[in-house]
Amino acid sequence: MTFNRKDLLGLEDLKSSEILALIENAESLKEISQRDIKKVPTLRGKTVICFFHEPSTRTRTSFEIAGKRMSADTVNISASGSSLVKGETLKDMARNLEAMAPDVIIIRHSVPGTPHLLAHTLKTSIVNAGDGAHEHPTQALLDLMTIREHKGKFEGLNVLLVGDITHSRVARSNIYGMTTMGMNITVAGPPTTIPPFIERLGVKVVHRYDHLIPECDVIMMLRVQKERFHRPLFPSMREYSKLFGLNLKRLQKAREDVLIMHPGPINRGIELDPAVADGPFSVILEQVTNGVAIRMAILYLLCRGISEK
Amino acid sequence: MTFNRKDLLGLEDLKSSEILALIENAESLKEISQRDIKKVPTLRGKTVICFFHEPSTRTRTSFEIAGKRMSADTVNISASGSSLVKGETLKDMARNLEAMAPDVIIIRHSVPGTPHLLAHTLKTSIVNAGDGAHEHPTQALLDLMTIREHKGKFEGLNVLLVGDITHSRVARSNIYGMTTMGMNITVAGPPTTIPPFIERLGVKVVHRYDHLIPECDVIMMLRVQKERFHRPLFPSMREYSKLFGLNLKRLQKAREDVLIMHPGPINRGIELDPAVADGPFSVILEQVTNGVAIRMAILYLLCRGISEK
Amino acid sequence: MTFNRKDLLGLEDLKSSEILALIENAESLKEISQRDIKKVPTLRGKTVICFFHEPSTRTRTSFEIAGKRMSADTVNISASGSSLVKGETLKDMARNLEAMAPDVIIIRHSVPGTPHLLAHTLKTSIVNAGDGAHEHPTQALLDLMTIREHKGKFEGLNVLLVGDITHSRVARSNIYGMTTMGMNITVAGPPTTIPPFIERLGVKVVHRYDHLIPECDVIMMLRVQKERFHRPLFPSMREYSKLFGLNLKRLQKAREDVLIMHPGPINRGIELDPAVADGPFSVILEQVTNGVAIRMAILYLLCRGISEK
Repeated sequence: MTFNRKDLLGLEDLKSSEILALIENAESLKEISQRDIKKVPTLRGKTVICFFHEPSTRTRTSFEIAGKRMSADTVNISASGSSLVKGETLKDMARNLEAMAPDVIIIRHSVPGTPHLLAHTLKTSIVNAGDGAHEHPTQALLDLMTIREHKGKFEGLNVLLVGDITHSRVARSNIYGMTTMGMNITVAGPPTTIPPFIERLGVKVVHRYDHLIPECDVIMMLRVQKERFHRPLFPSMREYSKLFGLNLKRLQKAREDVLIMHPGPINRGIELDPAVADGPFSVILEQVTNGVAIRMAILYLLCRGISEK
Repeated sequence: MTFNRKDLLGLEDLKSSEILALIENAESLKEISQRDIKKVPTLRGKTVICFFHEPSTRTRTSFEIAGKRMSADTVNISASGSSLVKGETLKDMARNLEAMAPDVIIIRHSVPGTPHLLAHTLKTSIVNAGDGAHEHPTQALLDLMTIREHKGKFEGLNVLLVGDITHSRVARSNIYGMTTMGMNITVAGPPTTIPPFIERLGVKVVHRYDHLIPECDVIMMLRVQKERFHRPLFPSMREYSKLFGLNLKRLQKAREDVLIMHPGPINRGIELDPAVADGPFSVILEQVTNGVAIRMAILYLLCRGISEK
Repeated sequence: MTFNRKDLLGLEDLKSSEILALIENAESLKEISQRDIKKVPTLRGKTVICFFHEPSTRTRTSFEIAGKRMSADTVNISASGSSLVKGETLKDMARNLEAMAPDVIIIRHSVPGTPHLLAHTLKTSIVNAGDGAHEHPTQALLDLMTIREHKGKFEGLNVLLVGDITHSRVARSNIYGMTTMGMNITVAGPPTTIPPFIERLGVKVVHRYDHLIPECDVIMMLRVQKERFHRPLFPSMREYSKLFGLNLKRLQKAREDVLIMHPGPINRGIELDPAVADGPFSVILEQVTNGVAIRMAILYLLCRGISEK
């Protein structure tokens, strides 16, 4: 059970053994962030470039902290300060970065498939930190890690994914990862936000989810990405919140060991009631903590790959 | 004599023994920046986040250098690249950062009280790097350190603070710190820039300061913050400069050991004549040098706190 | 043969022995970036500030990686987040940075002569990372290093520099450096882009270059800097590309050991045909790799200077 790839581009084609290898590695690295001296020399002399074309705090910071806690040198490049404003192609820019001998390039980009293009072009390891509405694999891995911490298994767990599935890279990566791990997924959202034929990915679709709550092991609420769509996909935020938002009343019917998850940032009062976000079933901040561990694992496995494989 | 708090939010409620502990600590750390190899392993494995919501060069750079010289891992987050643009609340974002196990979060924010809100919300140590027109404690501490270096004491020193007191967090923190240390403060500025009832903080108010110059041990000029007010507080810059600007002529009446201070950045020719800014009484660049030492002391005392208290 | 200056401002007044010292130093440091653990402790405890007033990816990243691979602490300051927006003069800001005891300040600025002003003002070592259309010395040094790797010498080599010479700091630095090293330079471009009296720098000028291709050892294509000029210097990009762009047809007449160089970022299809940019004569990515080595050498020689001279 191991992970031997050059890149982490998505969960679509990862085997369950690879997902497990990543998670188990992260579990063993997690305690480093709980030490008094949160630093190991594992990646000393490795160069990690964070190349973010879309605004990000938690993901970029999480990767940067993951790299630094393993003693890697981290370099940040944001779109605004970059030479892409001078008309350079992304491919040329990536080749240029590669010529400076980094070990890993972490990329976030609004165009789906960009990390795959770079992975194909470069010998350097590429990590997808979110490509448009396509995949966000480290998010799904940290979600899976959090579920396993609480449930001790994946097989047979019932998951409800609520929100705008069409525009969510978090949903897509989780659907790939969770089905691979043998979980049962139902997606719920307004009809305009569910992609046609999504059942082919092995998920069930509903447009009301109250009746499913009693069977859920995990309820994952997605963020309403107000900044992403130019014409509204549903009548109003109020309407959305009423039909799809998770509140204490809806949660009354839940199992007492249900996990409430959210990839953040939360729109409080829209998809998630503050009382639920901060309540006893919420594992939202544990997800963030596990994010650092997952990213340490990814960086470790990719850098080790370069030198040992 | 020691400093045992979780946070550094302001000087308003610090005791003189705490202020002295911080300054003495900074005095002992200052020589590190004069070494050939300017680095000690003291904060190895500690994570320091600089979270700046307002533009800053000197303060952010000073904190970053302070952290790096003590071997801490430093991570920068600016407002523009952050997920606050996605509608997240500051409190949620702070909780998310905390979940990544930083040791200190340094925050600058335009809303007064923001650092206090975070300090109340988080277990992580918070340092206020400037909150609106409220406080800027590390600036006042470096000012006090610079005064002590030259005068050897605080008790009984006469300080003149000149400028827009209402909008100055530097003035407010210095008034708190200097009165605590037993200094006599007079503030001078156009009537529109002096907050009502400021005498209750233990300072005298004047609207012309020439007659006071001969008694001053310290003259601290404040920056005219052109970018901060939308309607002018005085007729013209020329008028302000004539009445309140410090020039060589005004300085002729000063004691020969007077200290001229300014928190920077200077508006040359407005509040401060270039000949004074660069003259023999100016300790403006010493203030900057001491800023690194004060920030090293703060980071050290807060991080030590976390692990030893 | 050595380099003993406080600053690297340009190639105009460097002697050939100094240029050689820098290149030979870079040649010996280059292999560090090829190691499994790409890090040496040489600059531990040194502080390097990258102060970039114009957008840059490759140059800033190259300097940052160079610093980190030698264990220096690197701090980035960009124009947008800086206190220059508060009306501070550049000189004051530089003096403030100096008061924080950096060892090297690397500056890019749109105003020619800015690095020279800082070098004159500060005791800190200054590196010019591009000042307007004046000089970009580390670029020319990495170009020279790349040429020497392939040709084993400089003396007598024929170089063709094609593009907008007037607005190119890369061209200017290369003209200085290459003439110092005994190379024969011809510049080619539309008449509107060739500065008057440029022959006085020791170069020949042509307005068509096809006939020269068979004699060229090196063809260096410059980027059409679309973002820099507000009124066009030539009728159209298509016209420019037809007359001055380097394509496979033009290259047929070249020697089989010709080197095709470009400082990047490339405008593919304008000054350089993709088939040429990615073809067997192109050393464009080697230039980037050598850029890290040259910048390691500069930082090393300047920091050593500070402590040993």
